[in-house]
Amino acid sequence: MKKTTILALLFLISVSLFGQEKDAAFIRKIYDEALERGESYEMLRHLTKDIGGRLSGSPQAAAAVEWSRQQMMAYGFDTVYLQPVMVPHWVRGEVEIGRIVNSKKLGSKEIAVTSLGNAVGTGPGGTVAEVIEVKDFQQLAELGESKIKGKIVFFNRPMDAKLMDTFSAYGGASNQRGSGPTEAAKYGAVGVLVRSLSSFKDKVLHTGSTNYGLNVSKIPAVAITAHDADFLSELLKDDPKLQFYFETHAEMLEDVLSYNVVGEIKGSTHPDEIIAVGGHLDSWDLAEGAHDDGAGCVQSIEILRLYKALGYRPKRTIRAVMFMNEENGLRGGRKYAELAAQNGEKHIAAMESDRGGFLPVGFGITGTDAQQKKLISWEPLFHPFGLYQFNAGGGGADISPLRTQDVPTIGFIPDSQRYFKYHHTPIDNFEAVNQRELELGAASMAAMIYLIDQYGLN
Amino acid sequence: MKKTTILALLFLISVSLFGQEKDAAFIRKIYDEALERGESYEMLRHLTKDIGGRLSGSPQAAAAVEWSRQQMMAYGFDTVYLQPVMVPHWVRGEVEIGRIVNSKKLGSKEIAVTSLGNAVGTGPGGTVAEVIEVKDFQQLAELGESKIKGKIVFFNRPMDAKLMDTFSAYGGASNQRGSGPTEAAKYGAVGVLVRSLSSFKDKVLHTGSTNYGLNVSKIPAVAITAHDADFLSELLKDDPKLQFYFETHAEMLEDVLSYNVVGEIKGSTHPDEIIAVGGHLDSWDLAEGAHDDGAGCVQSIEILRLYKALGYRPKRTIRAVMFMNEENGLRGGRKYAELAAQNGEKHIAAMESDRGGFLPVGFGITGTDAQQKKLISWEPLFHPFGLYQFNAGGGGADISPLRTQDVPTIGFIPDSQRYFKYHHTPIDNFEAVNQRELELGAASMAAMIYLIDQYGLN
Repeated sequence: MKKTTILALLFLISVSLFGQEKDAAFIRKIYDEALERGESYEMLRHLTKDIGGRLSGSPQAAAAVEWSRQQMMAYGFDTVYLQPVMVPHWVRGEVEIGRIVNSKKLGSKEIAVTSLGNAVGTGPGGTVAEVIEVKDFQQLAELGESKIKGKIVFFNRPMDAKLMDTFSAYGGASNQRGSGPTEAAKYGAVGVLVRSLSSFKDKVLHTGSTNYGLNVSKIPAVAITAHDADFLSELLKDDPKLQFYFETHAEMLEDVLSYNVVGEIKGSTHPDEIIAVGGHLDSWDLAEGAHDDGAGCVQSIEILRLYKALGYRPKRTIRAVMFMNEENGLRGGRKYAELAAQNGEKHIAAMESDRGGFLPVGFGITGTDAQQKKLISWEPLFHPFGLYQFNAGGGGADISPLRTQDVPTIGFIPDSQRYFKYHHTPIDNFEAVNQRELELGAASMAAMIYLIDQYGLN
Repeated sequence: MKKTTILALLFLISVSLFGQEKDAAFIRKIYDEALERGESYEMLRHLTKDIGGRLSGSPQAAAAVEWSRQQMMAYGFDTVYLQPVMVPHWVRGEVEIGRIVNSKKLGSKEIAVTSLGNAVGTGPGGTVAEVIEVKDFQQLAELGESKIKGKIVFFNRPMDAKLMDTFSAYGGASNQRGSGPTEAAKYGAVGVLVRSLSSFKDKVLHTGSTNYGLNVSKIPAVAITAHDADFLSELLKDDPKLQFYFETHAEMLEDVLSYNVVGEIKGSTHPDEIIAVGGHLDSWDLAEGAHDDGAGCVQSIEILRLYKALGYRPKRTIRAVMFMNEENGLRGGRKYAELAAQNGEKHIAAMESDRGGFLPVGFGITGTDAQQKKLISWEPLFHPFGLYQFNAGGGGADISPLRTQDVPTIGFIPDSQRYFKYHHTPIDNFEAVNQRELELGAASMAAMIYLIDQYGLN
């Protein structure tokens, strides 16, 4: 009996060691294929340079839908299809003008502005008013209607440079953009300036969506660069009567029909168990949407291509999803979850890449303790490739609606140091993406999905 | 007795825990200062945009010497001085022309070329000959004089894309550039084309030094882009009579006087024990030398500035060294070690940053087992800042001559994925450097040197 137990143990250990070796070897093959013959970079070149910025409802967004459908069909995925979804159709308009009107020191001075996404425009007459600077909503409330009414509120709280995770720094500053116009309108403000959400004191405009609350008037709102925000703040110190003029022609048009694009490889033994991996196909209009989120889209397609190139037939169904409208509505992500529920689909995991095509450093997972433990236990298999951050807690905006169906969501984590240089700016272009980093990201996700496919998460 | 032992143990543990907490807190301060008020990026802007490429012997190299001397004096370092050193003075010349002469398919076609550093030029007549492609020196030897004589040898072994450490991939390909012309000349070749040492199949020229052996004729040698190397290789397959013409006007002039620049903060308790940290001030001439190695220089100065800004008075003498002539002679590094020996200086450690201003991932150390263990034991203090690679084995070209004096050498390791996109190219410019990555590198080195200063390495 004792002998049998020992033999059984030895057998289990050897199977486990053999399994680890087999996994390590296959993961090495995934990285080799991505680094030597990867196609994510050329896909990204097409999506960014040939198609360009892909704001929901734009012709470029439609072109991107059709391109990703054709691309996945050309790769011979088992099924490729569209999920229709109505999306908001916000347009920026041609002209965006900003100007300090009456500085005691400078007189009039042009300041670059860009409308926040979803914001109303000022129309041809523009908006002009005195500027009042605030750090946060508490300070806004303390000033109250008597100080705010009729003015332009200038939100000027920088992202905290000390935080290593720049997404945390972003989280600590982004309510100024998302809710600043709504909060300012409560006290009778006529317009809003927001310091660009940048990790740097740079001269780059960062747009991004704002969301008007119910029962407050929609006031126009623009971002100015971090550099100009510091400049304006300095001027205001001894010039409280300083006025700012800005003119924007943004408007929200009728919703239009668009699509999520889905491509899948059917599982060989558990076809009803789905592992989804995606990025969002829409982007802001100021640039080509390379890091945000062309990278996540082409990486997701590349994962399935890698499996096919390596002759890997997954046990479960692996699905690449190009979500539509993450930036200013999340309609695609909501529709995907809605359809999953409606069709009784069983997702055993969903992963998103929406933090740029930068150097992979790890994964974060939101799920049960057991699911989190299991994913984190695979960390050593990623050490040869420089991934060291395996955390509980993670996901992505587009896959977050799946959480109500208890789907474990996994966020791919690339290094975050450079992301908020490019995020929502005119410089988020193909040239800002490094080929090896993009390929390593695709390989890392393909390796993680391979492990989930082999062993599940439960 | 037992009680006393327990108390003593508790005391030791608490001292050790207190020490760890104190170190963690001070290291946090270093990073905060670098990220919030760091000056490395503005220093780099001046060194690259205002001064520019700094080839040994050039006016820009001289300007960089004077700038770094003044900069360190302006920061109020205790001592700032120059170490005179004679350096080679190689010049590229104005014109570099390359051309496929007689392709069966294309006839004549211009191909961009750039002379290898230290190489002789062809002069106005150029060099024209049939091209013979080889992968390595073994293949060259097998072909021998009968096949090589009178021809242009085309070294076309790519860097291995599969290697995660791109410096290893570089190491596996770089002898083509360093020794290719010498090896080819042994068999009577009249010129050399080298595939650019790039991690990518890109259209970017990479120069870099070649070193002629004794007793072989010095033949002219140029790099072509990886893209053109693949193109040429394809043409040669069914066009063995294809000829290539290239014209360069490079020449080696007389040695000139230049300098290492040294700035130091004197140690408060062990002033005779020196910790040196440096980069090399010279760069190639095709670009501004931002990653290679402006970054290492400004980071080294920034380390001392950080200490002063934080009011940290080191126990040992901390020395920032701007080495001259790493790229095509290493004269500065040799002179530094020679003077250290001559002056009986005791270096307890030397560190170099010469792998670009990229995301810090760790340190490598060459030294005794005990020294290596000690440095590696500090790894957990760096985990909050994303550093996970602490290896035995490391250093840098400029500090390598100190090894004969048993000085432990430490290489700062940033992520290597992007380095060989910029290395020795026309695109190694200020714009290629990210501010946070540069600052994090300076902070990481400042933290490591702080620990060495506090606890030594023995």
